[in-house]
Amino acid sequence: MFKDKDFLLIDYTEKVKDSGEVIDTTNEEEAKKEGIYREDKTYGPTLIILGQGDVVKGLEEALYNAEVGAEKTIEVPPEKAYGTRDPTKIKIVSLSELKRQGINPYPNMVLRLNEGGLATVKSVSGGRVILDLNHPLADKTIIYNFKVEKLIESQEDKVKAILGKWFKKSGEKIGVDMSTEKKVKLTMPKELLLVENIQLLKYVAAKDIVKFVLPEHAVLYEEEFDSSILK
Amino acid sequence: MFKDKDFLLIDYTEKVKDSGEVIDTTNEEEAKKEGIYREDKTYGPTLIILGQGDVVKGLEEALYNAEVGAEKTIEVPPEKAYGTRDPTKIKIVSLSELKRQGINPYPNMVLRLNEGGLATVKSVSGGRVILDLNHPLADKTIIYNFKVEKLIESQEDKVKAILGKWFKKSGEKIGVDMSTEKKVKLTMPKELLLVENIQLLKYVAAKDIVKFVLPEHAVLYEEEFDSSILK
Repeated sequence: MFKDKDFLLIDYTEKVKDSGEVIDTTNEEEAKKEGIYREDKTYGPTLIILGQGDVVKGLEEALYNAEVGAEKTIEVPPEKAYGTRDPTKIKIVSLSELKRQGINPYPNMVLRLNEGGLATVKSVSGGRVILDLNHPLADKTIIYNFKVEKLIESQEDKVKAILGKWFKKSGEKIGVDMSTEKKVKLTMPKELLLVENIQLLKYVAAKDIVKFVLPEHAVLYEEEFDSSILK
Repeated sequence: MFKDKDFLLIDYTEKVKDSGEVIDTTNEEEAKKEGIYREDKTYGPTLIILGQGDVVKGLEEALYNAEVGAEKTIEVPPEKAYGTRDPTKIKIVSLSELKRQGINPYPNMVLRLNEGGLATVKSVSGGRVILDLNHPLADKTIIYNFKVEKLIESQEDKVKAILGKWFKKSGEKIGVDMSTEKKVKLTMPKELLLVENIQLLKYVAAKDIVKFVLPEHAVLYEEEFDSSILK
C-alpha cells in the first residue's frame, strides 16, 4: 500500500484490449519487437509520483494498492483510461485550410491540431475533411502489465529520481549535495552546460524537488565553464 | 597610448561625412534627437577591447593613440571604415523569389539576405530586382567624435565590464568572487535565471573572461532557484 507523493519506479506495458496492440512500454526489447521503439525515449523503470496524474486514473489507483516486486496485470475501462467517445466531438474543416498548415490528410491519419489536442481523420471528400476530436484511444479498454520495481525512500534518492526524469541519462551525472541547511546544491556535468533549453529543465526540476522532497529549500545549480568547453 | 587587449570604455557618435547623417551614438539624448533611438540598445560608454575589431579599423587605430578624457574628432576614409564599393557586387534576383521570402522590395530598401549580409535594392522592374551587395556605407567617409571615458585596469573591473557587455543592465547585478585560486565565481541574479538564451550568453561571457582577463581560470556560475521564482 502506497500513499500520495510516494516515489515509485515502475516498469509497464500498455496494450489495447480488443486489438492486442502494444501502445507503450518501458521495456526496450519489447518496444523493438512491437515496432514502437523510439530513439529519443529512455527505457527502463520510470518515475511515477503518486497522486499527480502521471498515468491514467485506473493505473494510478492500482499503484496505490501494489507492492514492490509483484507483477500485476489489470484491465482499465475507458472511463479510467482515455475517456469515452463523445459523438458530438466531430469537426468539419476545409481541405485547403489543412494543406495550408502543411497537412495532407488521409483516412485514419492522426494529426496534432494547431489549437492543441489530437484528431483522427474520418474522411476526405469534396474539399471537406471530417475530423474526430475524441482521443484516439477513447472507448478502449486498456490492459496494463506492471511491476513496482522500487519505492524510493531517501530524500537524496528522490532528488536523483527527479533529475533522471528531467535530464534523462545526464541526470545521473549531476552532483547532489544536501549538506547545507535549507539548500540542495546540484553540480551540473559539462554535457549539460550547452544544452539549449536547459534553463527550463532546471526550473521544472527545481520546482519538483521543492514541491515533493525538500519544501522551503532553495536549489542551487553550479555550472563550471572551464577550458575543456571554452573552445 | 593604449595597447592590444586594453579595455576601454568609450563614448562616440558616428556620422556620414557627406550627408551629415548620424548612424550610431552611445549618447541617449543624441540618439533621440537624431531619430535613431532604440529601446533594446543600452546607451552610455561602451566596452571596446583593443585589437579585436570591435569597431572599424580607422577608429580602432585612433583609439590606440587616444588618452583618457580627451574628446577627439577623426575622419575615417572608406578603406578604414566600411570599405570601398565593388561595382561587380551586383546581383539580379527574381521578384517572386524575394516575395516568397516575405520581402516586398522597393528602390533604396536595405534588406538582410538569407545567406547573410546586407543588400540595397537598386531597381524593381519586369519581375526582376537588382540588388547591390556592397555595404550600404561603402565608399563613405565616416566622422567619429569619441572620448575614452576610462581605461579599465583591475581584473575584477574587466570581468564586470564583460558581464555588462553580454548581460546589459543585469550584468551589474552578477556577483563576482575571485577569492578562489584559478576560479572566478559568478552569482547570477534572479532576473537572469529564466531568460531563454541565457546559456549562450554565459558561454560567451566565460570565454571572454578567460581569453582577456583570467587565462587558465574556470568560470563557475551559481544560480539559486528559491521559492520566489519557483511559483
